[in-house]
Amino acid sequence: MGIVLGPNRYGKAETRVVRVDRDGDRHTLTDLNVSVALAGDLAATHLTGDNSQVLPTDTQKNTVYAFARRHGISSAEEFGLLLARHFVDSQPSIDRARIDIEQYGWQRLGPHSFQRDGTQTRTATVRYDGDRAEIVAGLTGLVLLNTTDSEFCGFVVDPYTTLPPADDRILATAVDARWRYAGVVPGAADWDTAHAAVRDTLVAAFVGTYSRSLQQTLYAMGERVLTDHPQVVEVRLVLPNKHHLLVDLGPVGLDNPNTVFVVADRPYGLIEGTVRRDDAAPALGDW
Amino acid sequence: MGIVLGPNRYGKAETRVVRVDRDGDRHTLTDLNVSVALAGDLAATHLTGDNSQVLPTDTQKNTVYAFARRHGISSAEEFGLLLARHFVDSQPSIDRARIDIEQYGWQRLGPHSFQRDGTQTRTATVRYDGDRAEIVAGLTGLVLLNTTDSEFCGFVVDPYTTLPPADDRILATAVDARWRYAGVVPGAADWDTAHAAVRDTLVAAFVGTYSRSLQQTLYAMGERVLTDHPQVVEVRLVLPNKHHLLVDLGPVGLDNPNTVFVVADRPYGLIEGTVRRDDAAPALGDW
Amino acid sequence: MGIVLGPNRYGKAETRVVRVDRDGDRHTLTDLNVSVALAGDLAATHLTGDNSQVLPTDTQKNTVYAFARRHGISSAEEFGLLLARHFVDSQPSIDRARIDIEQYGWQRLGPHSFQRDGTQTRTATVRYDGDRAEIVAGLTGLVLLNTTDSEFCGFVVDPYTTLPPADDRILATAVDARWRYAGVVPGAADWDTAHAAVRDTLVAAFVGTYSRSLQQTLYAMGERVLTDHPQVVEVRLVLPNKHHLLVDLGPVGLDNPNTVFVVADRPYGLIEGTVRRDDAAPALGDW
Amino acid sequence: MGIVLGPNRYGKAETRVVRVDRDGDRHTLTDLNVSVALAGDLAATHLTGDNSQVLPTDTQKNTVYAFARRHGISSAEEFGLLLARHFVDSQPSIDRARIDIEQYGWQRLGPHSFQRDGTQTRTATVRYDGDRAEIVAGLTGLVLLNTTDSEFCGFVVDPYTTLPPADDRILATAVDARWRYAGVVPGAADWDTAHAAVRDTLVAAFVGTYSRSLQQTLYAMGERVLTDHPQVVEVRLVLPNKHHLLVDLGPVGLDNPNTVFVVADRPYGLIEGTVRRDDAAPALGDW
Repeated sequence: MGIVLGPNRYGKAETRVVRVDRDGDRHTLTDLNVSVALAGDLAATHLTGDNSQVLPTDTQKNTVYAFARRHGISSAEEFGLLLARHFVDSQPSIDRARIDIEQYGWQRLGPHSFQRDGTQTRTATVRYDGDRAEIVAGLTGLVLLNTTDSEFCGFVVDPYTTLPPADDRILATAVDARWRYAGVVPGAADWDTAHAAVRDTLVAAFVGTYSRSLQQTLYAMGERVLTDHPQVVEVRLVLPNKHHLLVDLGPVGLDNPNTVFVVADRPYGLIEGTVRRDDAAPALGDW
Repeated sequence: MGIVLGPNRYGKAETRVVRVDRDGDRHTLTDLNVSVALAGDLAATHLTGDNSQVLPTDTQKNTVYAFARRHGISSAEEFGLLLARHFVDSQPSIDRARIDIEQYGWQRLGPHSFQRDGTQTRTATVRYDGDRAEIVAGLTGLVLLNTTDSEFCGFVVDPYTTLPPADDRILATAVDARWRYAGVVPGAADWDTAHAAVRDTLVAAFVGTYSRSLQQTLYAMGERVLTDHPQVVEVRLVLPNKHHLLVDLGPVGLDNPNTVFVVADRPYGLIEGTVRRDDAAPALGDW
Repeated sequence: MGIVLGPNRYGKAETRVVRVDRDGDRHTLTDLNVSVALAGDLAATHLTGDNSQVLPTDTQKNTVYAFARRHGISSAEEFGLLLARHFVDSQPSIDRARIDIEQYGWQRLGPHSFQRDGTQTRTATVRYDGDRAEIVAGLTGLVLLNTTDSEFCGFVVDPYTTLPPADDRILATAVDARWRYAGVVPGAADWDTAHAAVRDTLVAAFVGTYSRSLQQTLYAMGERVLTDHPQVVEVRLVLPNKHHLLVDLGPVGLDNPNTVFVVADRPYGLIEGTVRRDDAAPALGDW
Repeated sequence: MGIVLGPNRYGKAETRVVRVDRDGDRHTLTDLNVSVALAGDLAATHLTGDNSQVLPTDTQKNTVYAFARRHGISSAEEFGLLLARHFVDSQPSIDRARIDIEQYGWQRLGPHSFQRDGTQTRTATVRYDGDRAEIVAGLTGLVLLNTTDSEFCGFVVDPYTTLPPADDRILATAVDARWRYAGVVPGAADWDTAHAAVRDTLVAAFVGTYSRSLQQTLYAMGERVLTDHPQVVEVRLVLPNKHHLLVDLGPVGLDNPNTVFVVADRPYGLIEGTVRRDDAAPALGDW
């Protein structure tokens, strides 16, 4: 019975980089938070502190900045691919790279003026194993709400159940979505277009679904993405149920016909699910 | 030499209330976070635990919900006024009320569907002393950025100064603005219109000012609000300087002509200032 | 009717500095977050962008680090005094300085090993106007709880009151306390001793007070500090009522004799008050 | 090519429950944040909104409170086991349950008085599949620091490397540790004792290891736990490198012999690794 090193990785997390491109008076802005994680033949540093196979995380940070200067940032996905390939292909000890990027949106106010758009954060995760590359795009923090067309009835009633059925409730969630592309499409502009299109589909499915459960809404959102976007093979959704509870105003002598709600912080329902094509190639894995 | 009770107040903070109005199929949504603070003849509860002058904070919460049902929420400002007047006018022991409201914006996606707008949080503070009412509107979390037309030169150089002058830098800030209205304008819709107009002025002044210091930008923003909006008598701005520092890529053999920046978290410059009319009546005070 | 610059200040916020002192094998650690705010004759930078009276906030940061090296950090209070005096006394345009310091505690694990103590954050605010210096010490984030010896009865009942009287409840709060010293006591070690002693008094008063309201507890805490610590002239306390609500288990067939509680996030009661000596000199003000 | 529902789960997250036990005058306090996630035959609610297999998350919350009343909370681990078994064994549609618990520590101040201990958060994850149960204990937020006995040298130097070797640096991290027990040990008190013992081992290994890399420290911590605690079969550690960087005071004319450091927020190194017994049974999986 021995003690062994199991799965491990390391890297520099949360390198905040902004690139400004200046085409005459009209500037554009790209604002990323880049995290690098590398894995490979790293036993020596763990077992003996021999760092001869360790590319410093400080170097990884420098590389992010240098690549932003040298190659530009055509999209989060392309930038992640460049970085992932660089680390694996240039470092003999590194077999796999995972690049996680958050992108913050900015709305244009003028030729060189911008306002940060807090509606959502765009995400991209690139994995590369020296052979295959895999792109998972996503978004977080997109808060959606329907004031009607949502019910929750017909559920299991056990001795601890006190919830009455609801035939008309508010449904609200903060969408955390990740979708995996079938392959690495070459070319730059496509990633931005693809991301916007999938996002619009997710929103449209939330808006357009008469919901009998948040699970049903989740599945509808995932299914619609797969139906409308052939290049997507899998969608993972994490949907907190941001409860809006009808206030009981009877004790103060008022009715409340689905009008005034208390917004609860905790606890909250949490619905997580994956919708995928049945012939999708397996993912590179969540190492 | 005695020990005495000094300034004090109490209330219920952060009551989260959502009201839905249903005009046929088209619904509207108002989403507030309401904090109540009351002051007056409260010595007894402090000195002896005699609560006969204390309206429970739980009751204050109930009142927020009940008023949202009974009176609706025509605007954060009007709703705050209703609450402030109610507490002072109905409670003999209460002399002053302060209502702080945060309002979260939602963009319409459909007749009954909405997306939360994270661009900014609207604020309103209402103070009432039984005689005068005072409205301070505001916003927080509005992140603005100019990629050029900003410099910082000609500053004091002391033995600890190492900063080189900058003749072209990124200027970015998260606007925290509060503006005081001359009086309580009657009528409901005006508050929303006034808020949007002041907000637009703040943004336009940030965008349109060639900045030699963030202080200059601050003053320009305040001055423009006072010039364009006669009903505003005082503007207070808190502007963190969200530093975007040019990365030195020389050590890795690259130039960096104002292209790639590191976004710093801490420390940050913090610029705070007030711009006001010289004949403005004094505020009710920050008790 | 003109538009004028009102109160203003600027500085570098949240400079995170750690100093290590090495006395042979035994090391000590001081961990601060230092914010500088300066005020004075700063109209030019606001009105015209003339920075000739502006000491850069970057220089203020450098000064924090240089002073930590040159003078050491005998206490947060002394370090704040050194900085405040330096800025006002060396800069002709600066009339007043305010230094806000947070200090993070570390428990010793070995001669050179430490564990961060998350129980509370110590604070110090130093104001200096070229003549007088003022020290306000404090703490935040100290969460205290009594499982009994707390009631809340005899309060005002109005049409919106539904709260039943409680003759035995949990009382919990996160103490935010600030206390002003009578004068600037010379010497270093006293500040640490004084802080620890006042903290212990606050805790003892919370523990030892049978509470009929959180206001009563607040006053008892402040009064005890003034009684036991002659060098303190004023105590300001901000005490959120962290509600622990008895769960109604009747619907699932169980009693609940003050045993199981739900911890609420929002809304919460917020009790704020000052206890002071009636002959205390006025404070330098909260500019 | 069809579209199918992939892995999914649902539950109530972050139910905050406090239980008070009163043994005469001496009270004890247990403070948990409980999250439930259930999986099984849940296709119907996703595909058609048929909720006849769905136990409401509201019921799950009620169950947490009811179990805290009925069974008490002998430890986070035992409480998680009770809940996990209850949901799987009582619900025909539920095959697997995962209970995640955070426990907040309180230090005793008196018979019925407590102070929250912010040094760390204890965690427990219980998985149960109707047959096997699995306990993973852990902790988060434990910030440790060595002022010496840490170096980082001999690393890979590539064209982007600018970091100089460090032969004496500060090493600091916020420990996030999870350890899996070999089996479900019956009896209550053991879990608390086991947790405290593993925690002490982690701290001792951090303190006692001369570190040539944070990876080496990570492995030493994991190995020591496995060596000293036979009932643990696997340790997973996530260790951010909380960089303390020596300030370059040369430009202001001062040396800095490992004395004054800037504490960086972002980016940060992130070291993740698992240490395990080579004959450990596989885990129930991270569904």
